[in-house]
Amino acid sequence: MFKKVLIANRGEIALRVIRTCREMGIKTVAVYSTADKDSLHVKFADEAVCIGKPQSSESYLNIPHIMAAAEITNADAIHPGYGFLAENAKFAQICGDHGIKFIGPTPEMINSMGDKITAKETMIKAGVPCIPGSDGLLGSLEEAKELAKNLVGYPVILKATAGGGGKGMRVVWSEEEMERAYNTAKTEAAASFKNDGIYMEKFVEDPRHIEIQVAGDRYGTVCHLSERDCSIQRRHQKLVEESPSPFMTPELRQRMGEAAIKAASAINYESVGTIEFLVDKHRNFYFMEMNTRIQVEHCVTEEVINFDLIKEQLKIAMGEKISGLNYEPQMHAIECRINAEDPYNDFRPSPGKITVLHTPGGHGVRVDSHVYAGYVIPPFYDSMIGKLITIARTREEAIDTMYRALSEYVIEGVKTTIPFHLQLMQNEDFRKGNFTTKFLETFQMQ
Amino acid sequence: MFKKVLIANRGEIALRVIRTCREMGIKTVAVYSTADKDSLHVKFADEAVCIGKPQSSESYLNIPHIMAAAEITNADAIHPGYGFLAENAKFAQICGDHGIKFIGPTPEMINSMGDKITAKETMIKAGVPCIPGSDGLLGSLEEAKELAKNLVGYPVILKATAGGGGKGMRVVWSEEEMERAYNTAKTEAAASFKNDGIYMEKFVEDPRHIEIQVAGDRYGTVCHLSERDCSIQRRHQKLVEESPSPFMTPELRQRMGEAAIKAASAINYESVGTIEFLVDKHRNFYFMEMNTRIQVEHCVTEEVINFDLIKEQLKIAMGEKISGLNYEPQMHAIECRINAEDPYNDFRPSPGKITVLHTPGGHGVRVDSHVYAGYVIPPFYDSMIGKLITIARTREEAIDTMYRALSEYVIEGVKTTIPFHLQLMQNEDFRKGNFTTKFLETFQMQ
Repeated sequence: MFKKVLIANRGEIALRVIRTCREMGIKTVAVYSTADKDSLHVKFADEAVCIGKPQSSESYLNIPHIMAAAEITNADAIHPGYGFLAENAKFAQICGDHGIKFIGPTPEMINSMGDKITAKETMIKAGVPCIPGSDGLLGSLEEAKELAKNLVGYPVILKATAGGGGKGMRVVWSEEEMERAYNTAKTEAAASFKNDGIYMEKFVEDPRHIEIQVAGDRYGTVCHLSERDCSIQRRHQKLVEESPSPFMTPELRQRMGEAAIKAASAINYESVGTIEFLVDKHRNFYFMEMNTRIQVEHCVTEEVINFDLIKEQLKIAMGEKISGLNYEPQMHAIECRINAEDPYNDFRPSPGKITVLHTPGGHGVRVDSHVYAGYVIPPFYDSMIGKLITIARTREEAIDTMYRALSEYVIEGVKTTIPFHLQLMQNEDFRKGNFTTKFLETFQMQ
Repeated sequence: MFKKVLIANRGEIALRVIRTCREMGIKTVAVYSTADKDSLHVKFADEAVCIGKPQSSESYLNIPHIMAAAEITNADAIHPGYGFLAENAKFAQICGDHGIKFIGPTPEMINSMGDKITAKETMIKAGVPCIPGSDGLLGSLEEAKELAKNLVGYPVILKATAGGGGKGMRVVWSEEEMERAYNTAKTEAAASFKNDGIYMEKFVEDPRHIEIQVAGDRYGTVCHLSERDCSIQRRHQKLVEESPSPFMTPELRQRMGEAAIKAASAINYESVGTIEFLVDKHRNFYFMEMNTRIQVEHCVTEEVINFDLIKEQLKIAMGEKISGLNYEPQMHAIECRINAEDPYNDFRPSPGKITVLHTPGGHGVRVDSHVYAGYVIPPFYDSMIGKLITIARTREEAIDTMYRALSEYVIEGVKTTIPFHLQLMQNEDFRKGNFTTKFLETFQMQ
């Protein structure tokens, strides 16, 4: 049993870990930059150590400062949260070298998933579906045709190796279209990037981002805890997550769950983690990456399976065996990220002082937030100031409860994403579960 | 489907009903006394009507004012909440006479349970266990012995019919003690009240207050939704409630559930309601009374069975059939009543302005409260300013989460019961589930 855990993070996740530690009778140490001295994670921890200046490199990413804080407070474990050092294998290694337990996987596991090429190779070897494509650049039109027909399967997408912004990119739906697409892509690539190298990937139609929560212990047990749908993204930033996915079927959950267990087992994974997949409209799914840490959106899983995932993570780190973790969603949970951003102005960050705060409550409402009335949101870190989670027996009810809770949420002094979420909860397509990762590209604020 | 519901109440229960109505797409009308004009239930309702002066008789108990508010706002139903007019059969009758649906049972059902003697007779006829005793006054020592031996069973308690405060009261454990006890009780009664009449009741050893939530519809279906333990009381005021009861066994739950269904079925009960029982240390249970309304502590049941009881109550009132309500507790939930009272000064009410407010959050925490920073608690009504509910897989974890959440709860400007609850959550006997309704008589604040 850990006696004292240092949380090498800030904001809501630091508070989240402190809460579970307190419930387990474990002492906590907060670390903070000078910009965060009034943060709730500092107030609620048993001890708090200032580790440097506001810039992350001087504080939350500064390994020597964090290790010094752990040494002087005699912490026996470090929880990295998410972001910052959570997937830094060197940090995990240094913790171990100092006899301090890193609450997460081993440096080797972090490394094996941190390098995307290695990760993909490992997954293919383990039989986890990955997005098929050419092995490097395409040498000729004939090679492209051959590959698309026999290995990748139509539709495919051609991409410029030096590319970006859609230049030199072509979706090809059938062999008849290939010659023209191949030539155009090459010409465009040459003109735009002075490099006409192109490669091929399977084109994922109407992609959804669906991820599987997993947990593994040091005794070789790996289980999956069902999925989260995180397709509501803006420039790859998740804004809304839910579980179960409205696109899920029991059969797909079983296949994806098995693939996720294969993926985690391939690296003997120990801790909680997430396998991210892209799922196309035919319910084919492809490995994207594994996050070897707790995720922002872990709460929706907690609410549908009724487990505290931070507690499970701590227990695994203390050497306990996983037992009794069930994975069938009992309820429906949705999470809206409340960011200090202006949804009417391209989601521009809106740091500053929160002058009035009233949080929603009642049946089916969970709030995870590190802010309070009078708190000044510093401009140095991400703009998330809270997570609002609602839970109900059905997706429709969870959305209705979310709308109700959002309409009670009062945050004055800064702009927030609450108006965006209110509109999203009333959107017909969202309510029907009819959305992909491209949904927000065309969503307009009223 | 109701279009507009008027809530004839105030405080957290008014807000509670508004929340569910909003989730169901039903418009709401708040009514308020001049003392409550800044209350959250007024702010969150779609419409609000002032119904009079602070004194309840001038506002929340004033039937003509409330009916006028319903008429001018064109409400098609009235939810009475708890307290005030919730168990007033005349009010229910008047609602019906005006073509406005009273969200609760019929006036006849309210009456049949409102009169305690009628209620007891009905229960005995239905086969629901009631506390046995003499049928009126005892005529002689011989009658007392005969009754105790053959009908009531030892231990029994002798009580002065004109009594109170323990005078003329004697617990009798065996026949040998009867003569002395009988004579002393009569003498004491005569001396104290100038009336030596005494009667006999079964003495309930180590009593616990355990109640069963029931729901019935107009089609004759009645179900029970498991129990709540409300033994932590101070002068018959509940302070902490939980479900399941730590004293419960599956066998006792089945017996009590069946008795509760018999009780509600005996009056063809329609709506949600509660059968309150006293349970002795041998797990004998006795009917105390039925509350023909929603109760303060309904939230713990909602959290263990994952149903919104206000929604169920509304659906029953709209003529829907009960279906799918399960009653096996899935989780453990505890509720602490947060009152504006000073636990260090005999729980004296502490009205006034809330200067600082920070509510707890995170996994397993629910807050139901109508107050906010800057709100002034009026001195005219009960002192409850919120309910803090925690939910976990086990009772021990629910207590640990409660302690954590209480320690995050910041209310400044008034005294509250938070320090009391913090101490209770650390009390060994409470943690072991080792308590009766007399527990708080000897509990001392540190």
